[in-house]
Amino acid sequence: MPLSANNPDRTSWLHVGKNSDFPIQNIPFGVFLTRDDIITIGSRIGDTAIDLGALHQLGYFEGIPLTDDIFLQDTLNDFIADGRKTWRAVRDRIAEIFDSNNTILKNNTKHKEIVLFRLDEIEMQLPVQVGDYTDFYSSMEHATNVGTMFRDPDNALMPNWLHIPVGYHGRSSSIIPSGIPIHRPQGQTMPEGATEPIFGPSKLIDFELEMAFITTDANDLGEPIPVNEAEEYIFGLVLFNDWSARDIQKWEYVPLGPFLAKNFASSMSPWIVTLDALEPFKVESPKPIKPLLPYLKSKGKKGYDINLEVAIRPKNAKEAIVSKSNFKYMYWNMSQQLAHHTVNGCPVNSGDMMGSGTISGPTEESYGSMLELTWRGEKPLTMKDGTERKFINDFDTVIMRGHCEKDGTRIGFGEVSTQLLPIYNSQKNKKK
Amino acid sequence: MPLSANNPDRTSWLHVGKNSDFPIQNIPFGVFLTRDDIITIGSRIGDTAIDLGALHQLGYFEGIPLTDDIFLQDTLNDFIADGRKTWRAVRDRIAEIFDSNNTILKNNTKHKEIVLFRLDEIEMQLPVQVGDYTDFYSSMEHATNVGTMFRDPDNALMPNWLHIPVGYHGRSSSIIPSGIPIHRPQGQTMPEGATEPIFGPSKLIDFELEMAFITTDANDLGEPIPVNEAEEYIFGLVLFNDWSARDIQKWEYVPLGPFLAKNFASSMSPWIVTLDALEPFKVESPKPIKPLLPYLKSKGKKGYDINLEVAIRPKNAKEAIVSKSNFKYMYWNMSQQLAHHTVNGCPVNSGDMMGSGTISGPTEESYGSMLELTWRGEKPLTMKDGTERKFINDFDTVIMRGHCEKDGTRIGFGEVSTQLLPIYNSQKNKKK
Repeated sequence: MPLSANNPDRTSWLHVGKNSDFPIQNIPFGVFLTRDDIITIGSRIGDTAIDLGALHQLGYFEGIPLTDDIFLQDTLNDFIADGRKTWRAVRDRIAEIFDSNNTILKNNTKHKEIVLFRLDEIEMQLPVQVGDYTDFYSSMEHATNVGTMFRDPDNALMPNWLHIPVGYHGRSSSIIPSGIPIHRPQGQTMPEGATEPIFGPSKLIDFELEMAFITTDANDLGEPIPVNEAEEYIFGLVLFNDWSARDIQKWEYVPLGPFLAKNFASSMSPWIVTLDALEPFKVESPKPIKPLLPYLKSKGKKGYDINLEVAIRPKNAKEAIVSKSNFKYMYWNMSQQLAHHTVNGCPVNSGDMMGSGTISGPTEESYGSMLELTWRGEKPLTMKDGTERKFINDFDTVIMRGHCEKDGTRIGFGEVSTQLLPIYNSQKNKKK
Repeated sequence: MPLSANNPDRTSWLHVGKNSDFPIQNIPFGVFLTRDDIITIGSRIGDTAIDLGALHQLGYFEGIPLTDDIFLQDTLNDFIADGRKTWRAVRDRIAEIFDSNNTILKNNTKHKEIVLFRLDEIEMQLPVQVGDYTDFYSSMEHATNVGTMFRDPDNALMPNWLHIPVGYHGRSSSIIPSGIPIHRPQGQTMPEGATEPIFGPSKLIDFELEMAFITTDANDLGEPIPVNEAEEYIFGLVLFNDWSARDIQKWEYVPLGPFLAKNFASSMSPWIVTLDALEPFKVESPKPIKPLLPYLKSKGKKGYDINLEVAIRPKNAKEAIVSKSNFKYMYWNMSQQLAHHTVNGCPVNSGDMMGSGTISGPTEESYGSMLELTWRGEKPLTMKDGTERKFINDFDTVIMRGHCEKDGTRIGFGEVSTQLLPIYNSQKNKKK
């Protein structure tokens, strides 16, 4: 049964520009600071932000079982914990309130002044307090590229890769929303041919084009989530830039995996697009190359056709698009990832985040990292100002965008945009 | 200057048994549920639990800048965020209140009824909400044993091991307090000689004897913590059992490190012993074998002499002590771990937890895991009921204990005790 909020024929009395990522069929969720410095949970239609805390106080969610302060919070965790039935009811109600045929709020100037904001009046925040963050490694093209470069082109995939959605734990504390600049990390590296490691700024800063999903409370300690129930526990998706320091990674990662090469920063787009909004864009995942163990056999369409792109904008130049990929290339889908993650009884909570791993497609233009796009720096990319990039330079801004499109409806994620600054200067930067 | 709360000559009007881990010089912090089902932050002297929330409401902390509800919380995170000066003032005050020479509370029967509990009247909770959990790999003996067994006895340590306090991110959601039973995890393994992986209960469940430290808010995104300031940001220590499934680990861990082999459960002792209480037991760390990069050079005594032991108690038998180790064997100390963790600007927050990694000593009796104690199952251990153990059996309880002792003062951690139950049965176990 199609979800009411997804009705493709619905239009809104709020202005929605052509090619907007945020038509009334999207209705994403985020957290923002208003012009009055109040933090609230909100949604967005076109370029108008909607204060859901204020809407709720004015009675617009009457009939939906919600606590009074559910939207007057600085994270979405409690709302997400309310579960899919509640998310759907709220999304449907927002679609009704802003439907072209509904004049109740449209004709109430006083209420509109309280509830609606221009984007330049608000400041987007991290939408969830991420309890635990896991990063998968689920693009076969990416794993093959990395294996070819660093190990053995004839055995690029590790023996476990086609049997397991390989993943590892990441760091929650350095997940930041779009717009927050980061510093080039320093660390230990072992230069080619050296016998002792050295300390200094990383020379090989890279992005990783990923998407990440956000979960609700899913299971008790010990309890696995069946693969074909997994989507019930996924609230929505964001764009995710898993910043990486390749030289630090190379020296530190044996035998326990990446650590400081990853945990200096990961950036996310601030609007969480619900799995419900993405329902019309479901596609089949790639056919498994090896037989799957039963706990990983997902039925039906569990992939999503989401166009992705990455741009680099040097300090005083226009941006250059450096990659065009698609989320549908993922070999392992989110249902398989969540089933695998919990098959041992690992508990998953509201606000937990799981990254896809770098999303590389089959062509060179669709690779999801500089490591692959420039093939370890052998084939630099040219920027709009004529400068070349093997990896990311100081003051470069990396921008990722994503959207689905089908039968005239476009649902998008906006962008995650992060500038890389030079190394942290403790004299200049320390706040305390 | 010695800390007032550490005065070895002080005695308490509360009974403290001989060999108690909790004399008035300890004053640990924890969270418990009282007989009235109220959750509160507390401390402990001897076998008496102290309700700090009630003490504060009764005015006993007057003069110390504390918010009214600082102890009326279900985690210590906010109190820990108040910083070392506050922790010290509170610990000193508790020492004064319960000093043998102080009769104010001692003679106030009404107040004592509100504030004091027998241990069997309370239920210990997880003391912190762990934002991020990191596990290090800092015992040279452990890393050497594992490298010898699984890789190459002649090159047991990886090339980076003597240069980096190697660590990786763990999972916060499955950290549980002592007393909560866990289920044997299921998962994918590749049996010896097989060509396809199989699914089923792990056959090689192991403990790892660790200690873990808990931090306060330490730094901004981008800001490193200097190695010789690191202890300022460490609140205290607990015993930590990093449960491991060796067969799952072996198949999954390349190239991104352990994942499901670890994240089904990690158990901690419920009383956090402050670094201040452990001050008298500081010792030199082992001499570095290779020169250290400057950011890892710690000055003075940064190790701690803490006696550790592990016992296994089968279902209907007495416990057998299977390991006796010591925290002082750690090659990398906590200051080096925290400096390394933040050298790239990774933020560390109040309630974050960092495990030492398995603490193995130089002798066979001091190894910190069944993997090492039985040398991969080649030399089984005998239990008190005559049964043998290569790894942990269903219904076994694993108990870890730790204490320091010097000049007649003993400061201890109590214990972390966890029973392993058979695999989760979704019919029988599901609560919802």
